[in-house]
Amino acid sequence: MRFKLTIEYDGGPFQGWQRLPEHASVQGALEDAVEKLTGVRADVMGAGRTDAGVHARGQVAHVDIEKLFEPQRLADGLNAHLRPHPISVLEASAVVPEFHARFDALRRVYLYRVINRRAPLALERGKAWRVSRALDVEAMAAGAARLIGHHDFTTFRDAHCQAKSPLKTLDRADVLRDGGEILFWFEARSFLHRQVRSMLGTLVEVGLGKMTADDVGAALAAKDRARCGPVAPADGLYLMRIDY
Amino acid sequence: MRFKLTIEYDGGPFQGWQRLPEHASVQGALEDAVEKLTGVRADVMGAGRTDAGVHARGQVAHVDIEKLFEPQRLADGLNAHLRPHPISVLEASAVVPEFHARFDALRRVYLYRVINRRAPLALERGKAWRVSRALDVEAMAAGAARLIGHHDFTTFRDAHCQAKSPLKTLDRADVLRDGGEILFWFEARSFLHRQVRSMLGTLVEVGLGKMTADDVGAALAAKDRARCGPVAPADGLYLMRIDY
Repeated sequence: MRFKLTIEYDGGPFQGWQRLPEHASVQGALEDAVEKLTGVRADVMGAGRTDAGVHARGQVAHVDIEKLFEPQRLADGLNAHLRPHPISVLEASAVVPEFHARFDALRRVYLYRVINRRAPLALERGKAWRVSRALDVEAMAAGAARLIGHHDFTTFRDAHCQAKSPLKTLDRADVLRDGGEILFWFEARSFLHRQVRSMLGTLVEVGLGKMTADDVGAALAAKDRARCGPVAPADGLYLMRIDY
Repeated sequence: MRFKLTIEYDGGPFQGWQRLPEHASVQGALEDAVEKLTGVRADVMGAGRTDAGVHARGQVAHVDIEKLFEPQRLADGLNAHLRPHPISVLEASAVVPEFHARFDALRRVYLYRVINRRAPLALERGKAWRVSRALDVEAMAAGAARLIGHHDFTTFRDAHCQAKSPLKTLDRADVLRDGGEILFWFEARSFLHRQVRSMLGTLVEVGLGKMTADDVGAALAAKDRARCGPVAPADGLYLMRIDY
């Protein structure tokens, strides 16, 4: 039986989603929990391979489990074995054997949290990016709007990105003030490696007055990684939802 | 010169606000930072002595510092020395020598966060109380309303409470749903030891259908600690603000 899992995690203690020898990974912790619960090792295939330190409120994965499980009992059982880790299976559901968490995803939704204040973070340490100088939200929103649409995102692509094509369609890039926080929402069918953090670092340059919205459009059009601002830290990034 | 400090902290790693030998405390960490910055040991007097694990977004303290400091430089300097700890000085201001963080407080504002879901907490681990069975928010709000006003709060007072009188005036007790969270707001000039967590545990009994709003009123009127529900965990409690 194939199951779809919806998963929340604190990315802080992990070297990322992907299982790698000698590295703490979310995937590895989930596969260990599956093995402890069922006695059988199985691949847990995630929709997105989040980087080290990146969080998730709605990562999705699929896994094949031979033993019969009522879905809620599967979630409860995995959560019992996950207890030492900040990983929680929010929901499990039985799906058709053809369901594929990665390839069937129609939309990925990311949130990036910036806390714009001078004082260091205490309660949100590791959970947001603190930017101490005042940010111009309207300017960042104007810059973000230049990124929406079907483009060659080479400028905002990590050097190690393995995607075949740098062409992606960005459907949403909103910048919203929420009290002392600035929330950045991005939606696309898929993203290049470090695309959100690369766009984010560039938009913060705009917020600081070092670039204009026009500069963002020109950097995108240049298809040149050197035109990208500094990549934003992983701390503020959350994989919020995957739509199928 | 006397300074007023507004302080945020993650209570998780601390045995509470109060300095005690052999215990990690928020007060001790602040006094160490003051000593490192100024070369002189000084008492940091807090408005409220939060318990182990209780968080603060707006604790207030005062401290006397002989060396001349521009207030923002004092905050920055303390934050530099506090770096290993999840404690942040949000603001420092010069105040009159008579200002007393504890005795001059006119209102203390606490927030308690409950996350009402079956899955364990990953991102909010240690930062909220997860209650897995469905809670009736309207019933809890009705129960909370019975606590507002000037009462003998003996029922909701910890056995080790050192206050001279159990008489307190509760000005606000709101229960609000916010997505998957339930937020409880309490305001009073001052609270008894563990009063918020005692009231909270009782209100959750109401939310679960084990008690009624009338039972809350009767428990209050009984002035009997045995009538209090289980004390809620520290994880969900935040000292949000002190008004002067």
